[in-house]
Amino acid sequence: MRTALVVSYEGTNFHGYQIQRPGLRTVQGQLQDALQQLTGSAVETEVAGRTDAGVHARGQIVVSDLQTPIPVPHLPRVLNTRLPADLRVRRAVEVPAAFNPRYDAVRKTYCYVVDVSRTGDVFKRFTAYYYPYRLDFSRLSEGAKLLKGTHDFTSFCAAATPVTNKVRTLYDVRVDLQAEEQLLRIWVTGSGFLWNMVRILVGTLLDVGNGKIRPSSIPIILGACDRTKAGHTAPAHGLTLWEVAYTDEQLNKSLYANW
Amino acid sequence: MRTALVVSYEGTNFHGYQIQRPGLRTVQGQLQDALQQLTGSAVETEVAGRTDAGVHARGQIVVSDLQTPIPVPHLPRVLNTRLPADLRVRRAVEVPAAFNPRYDAVRKTYCYVVDVSRTGDVFKRFTAYYYPYRLDFSRLSEGAKLLKGTHDFTSFCAAATPVTNKVRTLYDVRVDLQAEEQLLRIWVTGSGFLWNMVRILVGTLLDVGNGKIRPSSIPIILGACDRTKAGHTAPAHGLTLWEVAYTDEQLNKSLYANW
Repeated sequence: MRTALVVSYEGTNFHGYQIQRPGLRTVQGQLQDALQQLTGSAVETEVAGRTDAGVHARGQIVVSDLQTPIPVPHLPRVLNTRLPADLRVRRAVEVPAAFNPRYDAVRKTYCYVVDVSRTGDVFKRFTAYYYPYRLDFSRLSEGAKLLKGTHDFTSFCAAATPVTNKVRTLYDVRVDLQAEEQLLRIWVTGSGFLWNMVRILVGTLLDVGNGKIRPSSIPIILGACDRTKAGHTAPAHGLTLWEVAYTDEQLNKSLYANW
Repeated sequence: MRTALVVSYEGTNFHGYQIQRPGLRTVQGQLQDALQQLTGSAVETEVAGRTDAGVHARGQIVVSDLQTPIPVPHLPRVLNTRLPADLRVRRAVEVPAAFNPRYDAVRKTYCYVVDVSRTGDVFKRFTAYYYPYRLDFSRLSEGAKLLKGTHDFTSFCAAATPVTNKVRTLYDVRVDLQAEEQLLRIWVTGSGFLWNMVRILVGTLLDVGNGKIRPSSIPIILGACDRTKAGHTAPAHGLTLWEVAYTDEQLNKSLYANW
């Protein structure tokens, strides 16, 4: 039965999502080991978005064909007993036989957290980028608005990327400052993302907020199609893959409900 | 100059606040080492509330007489370069020469976080008690109200405590459920606390929410003055010392502002 697992992980101690050479601890490796223990045979998986080393996920989607008598709703509980504490299966949902979590995704949402306190919040040290520098929130928001829409994001993509079509659509770039917690959250929802795209977007927006880049330069940077024109790459540990959406709204609801 | 430091720490990797035998990593030990590096001589400290192993603090107050030419507002930045990542000085404030952070405190607030999601939130695993059991929120709130006020809290105190007067006043016991995050927060503000008191209060309230104890039994448990009548002791890692208040409202404001 084709099954979608909604998976959360803290990326700190993983070498990214995707299986690499043996001995490197990856999310995919841990998941497939647990699935193999459960079903007794090797299990292949497909994923909505491969995350880099250090990047976290709240609602990653992992799909596989599972041969098991265990009812789908019981899978999270059963799998979690075989998974390490920094990796949890939060939901399991039956999906159509041809379902592909990556190609069928219509939008993904990432959340990037910036700790803007003076001294740093100990409780956020693995999940927020500590940035105690000058930051003009309205400048940053102005820059964020200019990133929305359909653009060639070559300037916001790690230079080594083999992908040729770098046109993507950002449906929303929302900046939200929680004054009491001194946390800035940058929410980015888009049709798809290039390698390091969110981290370069965030780094560039912080450079805008810091005064290094003018908000009005954002369209110029987009137009240049040149990675060297954009700002710095924000570190991996501030980034979380929040959720993935598909055309089937019923599916979206069932993936992210009843955790 | 007598200086109050507002200190945050994640208790996971500390053997509690107070210095114990050599080799055991404690918050006090790490702080005093950093202060000694700064001033060149041994520094004694006093603390508002000694926290047990595994308990966290957001706004712990640590006071010492410091001989240093460094201006007080710069102390957090300078000390933090000498402190481990799980311990931060968030503010430094000058206080009167006779100020004692423990005896001068008029109230303390603790926050206890319970992860009530089915599968557990990976990002809260060190700071919330994972409790995926039946929990009637309105029953729990009803129980919480009955704990407010001035009572003999012998039933809610670890049996081994040497303190004789176990009368304390709880100014507020507030329960707040964040549905989206599936986190229950129990806020307790009181004149003072006995050993394990918040953890026993929380464990008992969870037993009330779970159906093991009736809300109406709370006054009976208080009246019994017998630890065995109350519920279980909730684990240390859900507990955070949130803030400490003194009679001087100006001081309170300056301690918890501009982080």
